[in-house]
Amino acid sequence: MTAIALLILSLLNIASSCHGGITSHFVRKTQASIDMPREAFPPPSGHNAPEQVHITQGDHIGRSVIISWVTPVDKYPNTVTYWPAGKKHSHSHSHRHRHKASAETTYYRYYNYNSGYIHHATIKRLQYNTKYFYEIGSDESTRRFSFTTPPEVGPDVPFTFGIMGDLGQTYDSNITLEHYVSNPKAQAMLFVGDISYADNHPFHDNVKWDTWGRFAEKSTAYQPWIWTAGNHELDFAPEIDETTPFKPFMHRFPTPYKASNSISPLWYSIKRASAYIIVLSSYSAYGKYTPQYVWLEKELKKVDRKETPWLIVLVHSPWYNSINYHYMEGETMRVMFEPWFVQNKVDLVFAGHVHCYERSHRVSNIRYNITNGLSTPIKDPSAPIYITIGDGGNIEGLADSFTEPQPSYSAFREASFGHAILEIKNRTHAYYSWHRNQDNEPVAADSLWIYNRFWYPKEEQA
Amino acid sequence: MTAIALLILSLLNIASSCHGGITSHFVRKTQASIDMPREAFPPPSGHNAPEQVHITQGDHIGRSVIISWVTPVDKYPNTVTYWPAGKKHSHSHSHRHRHKASAETTYYRYYNYNSGYIHHATIKRLQYNTKYFYEIGSDESTRRFSFTTPPEVGPDVPFTFGIMGDLGQTYDSNITLEHYVSNPKAQAMLFVGDISYADNHPFHDNVKWDTWGRFAEKSTAYQPWIWTAGNHELDFAPEIDETTPFKPFMHRFPTPYKASNSISPLWYSIKRASAYIIVLSSYSAYGKYTPQYVWLEKELKKVDRKETPWLIVLVHSPWYNSINYHYMEGETMRVMFEPWFVQNKVDLVFAGHVHCYERSHRVSNIRYNITNGLSTPIKDPSAPIYITIGDGGNIEGLADSFTEPQPSYSAFREASFGHAILEIKNRTHAYYSWHRNQDNEPVAADSLWIYNRFWYPKEEQA
Repeated sequence: MTAIALLILSLLNIASSCHGGITSHFVRKTQASIDMPREAFPPPSGHNAPEQVHITQGDHIGRSVIISWVTPVDKYPNTVTYWPAGKKHSHSHSHRHRHKASAETTYYRYYNYNSGYIHHATIKRLQYNTKYFYEIGSDESTRRFSFTTPPEVGPDVPFTFGIMGDLGQTYDSNITLEHYVSNPKAQAMLFVGDISYADNHPFHDNVKWDTWGRFAEKSTAYQPWIWTAGNHELDFAPEIDETTPFKPFMHRFPTPYKASNSISPLWYSIKRASAYIIVLSSYSAYGKYTPQYVWLEKELKKVDRKETPWLIVLVHSPWYNSINYHYMEGETMRVMFEPWFVQNKVDLVFAGHVHCYERSHRVSNIRYNITNGLSTPIKDPSAPIYITIGDGGNIEGLADSFTEPQPSYSAFREASFGHAILEIKNRTHAYYSWHRNQDNEPVAADSLWIYNRFWYPKEEQA
Repeated sequence: MTAIALLILSLLNIASSCHGGITSHFVRKTQASIDMPREAFPPPSGHNAPEQVHITQGDHIGRSVIISWVTPVDKYPNTVTYWPAGKKHSHSHSHRHRHKASAETTYYRYYNYNSGYIHHATIKRLQYNTKYFYEIGSDESTRRFSFTTPPEVGPDVPFTFGIMGDLGQTYDSNITLEHYVSNPKAQAMLFVGDISYADNHPFHDNVKWDTWGRFAEKSTAYQPWIWTAGNHELDFAPEIDETTPFKPFMHRFPTPYKASNSISPLWYSIKRASAYIIVLSSYSAYGKYTPQYVWLEKELKKVDRKETPWLIVLVHSPWYNSINYHYMEGETMRVMFEPWFVQNKVDLVFAGHVHCYERSHRVSNIRYNITNGLSTPIKDPSAPIYITIGDGGNIEGLADSFTEPQPSYSAFREASFGHAILEIKNRTHAYYSWHRNQDNEPVAADSLWIYNRFWYPKEEQA
């Protein structure tokens, strides 16, 4: 590479950074990045009371729910009772329509930790767009929760997702979750990985998985969380002879992977309302010929934008990140899959991993052929917007050092904790907003009308 | 990217291709790319006679051997008898020093195929640099083979490796193997993956694994083959409900992975004479935090070039390939691991996958930071030479279409079947030669004195 070429490349980079990326210098008070004490999350009262209740979609189309919970000392009862919310004065009626489902029950050991009994009950053939109550436990330990099924899948069905990543169980995590729960709009959570941060504690103290389950229950028991595996779910610790990747995660957080013909809970898809959600695993194999690669290739062909206009991908490690943490870690997956994302006009890619917030322009970087030097991301109307939202709360602190100058692919970046909301209105429009923890929930620190890439591929303006 | 920059980049590429890469236009007769008939590989005579005998190194330092074989109808006897080759007239003496080792025996089903009994016996505490005989089977079905242990590990210990990839069991495969066997120098085989090509047949016809085992026995029973997993070892076939990657391979071809603290037979290392061999898996996870990544990071720190000057990596999918087949498939792993290879001054990387022969200059491509455009491979004295040698014989034919112009990283390329020999002389010098099938074995179509990167990092001249 000669000096003149370097000079020209530098000029190009300066020029191309004039998209107008914003580095927000919002001044915030940061919390100490420490976990809330265990005592903040006592188990529910009553003998063998079910705890750590969470639900996720149980099939490909939204008519099934997997209900998961833990009982500490006894395997039974391991059933869930559920019924559609009746009208007033129909208590006796609705009782006649109660259903029961049995759970599959499991447990695991991790170093010096023994889990409780972990139950997963899949309830099926639910009515769309219907509120259901469900009860688990027995006698005085019975606990009641509820959820609402999504509308039937269709191209103009409105639906509102929450998006969150790297939550943890710190004081900041608590604010993030409280803000999210206070928002009445969001109907399901797209969670982009890194859940409990148990692995940041000695011997991956798995009690932290239990306290996290109690902490998050106020949301996870009432609406489905769509799980993505992060690096803090790996729990790979050969030094203490724990060599099965994802052991605690796979025991605790089921996903409906078989419904999308996946062979692994770590990659799968669901349809929900007008959205097709594809979940990928940054920490599994994705080379050509591997199961995840073969699956994704087929999966993208299955997406019918006339049925589900919104194509959204969740993955833990971001592909477009301009923060000085985990910089370029996502390159290895990007070079493999990015051409498919552009070819299939993916609308949005959500990632976590970096403890910061960042939104990209619609860019692609797929012209490179080793010898042509064309390796700079460029604007591309067929490309997704990449959003890094690993700012749930974690325990490792904020990632607040940016690469400078702000690269051309970066539209907005800020080192604050928060969460996002995606309100899909119809096949063409969705309103996206990011909410930092320092503001009240209704305030959006970053927001954008997003235009569907299949139906209305116009350029968005922040 | 403006037109002027493109122009300059083009000029740069033309200029940088003036390293003097050679595209050999050797004219050859090609065989029909079809497997030899099954009848060419009858099982050995005798009831339940052991067949498909192969050996591999059984520990980290070369004092152990794993002996594997298949018995078709009966599990027993599943022992191996072995003894050091005695002097003349000491027959009775050596009989007193016979040892026995029991095998672990396994079998598997694959769709409509049931394997025979597959035996793996690890024999330990062998003397260095010693010829051993071994016998398996009983009565009239007994078969005798031999191998020679390597010299004790040390910096100036000469040793000669063969290198082969994508062998298959075609008429071309047969020539490759015959040529190799006719060379008296080679003491162990570095095999870079794609063994039987059973998966090219209906339902991955696993009988092809058996016939391959018989075909290759003339070499595999007499010297250790160091196994690398290729894509044709995946045998991932969800359409016939075979969803366990590497099932036949893992049952048939053990590797000494635990000796290098790996958790998977697909990545591991051995020391042999003056070489440290690292085997990687293109088809497992290698993202940051994954088991293979964590293992390789630690492994590279373990290499002591004062003990084993020669650091050699085997991987199936090549990182530097200028053939129009599988072009850039290796990028996803390259961007992850290449900086480590340069930093640790790896001497040689052998890959297969592309059914062609290619040798690179010492190049690296590790300056890229997304925004700087520095993504062209450049000469680097700390970088390995990358050799693609997927030209064993396969069943899919030769890859004979080259990218043009020949890129600057490519030193020599030719679409012929063949194998290579690496003669390590001492800590500084090794003689490398590639032997195309059309010539007699002693003829080298490509050869090079290779200088050790740690002890003598001078530039080589072909």
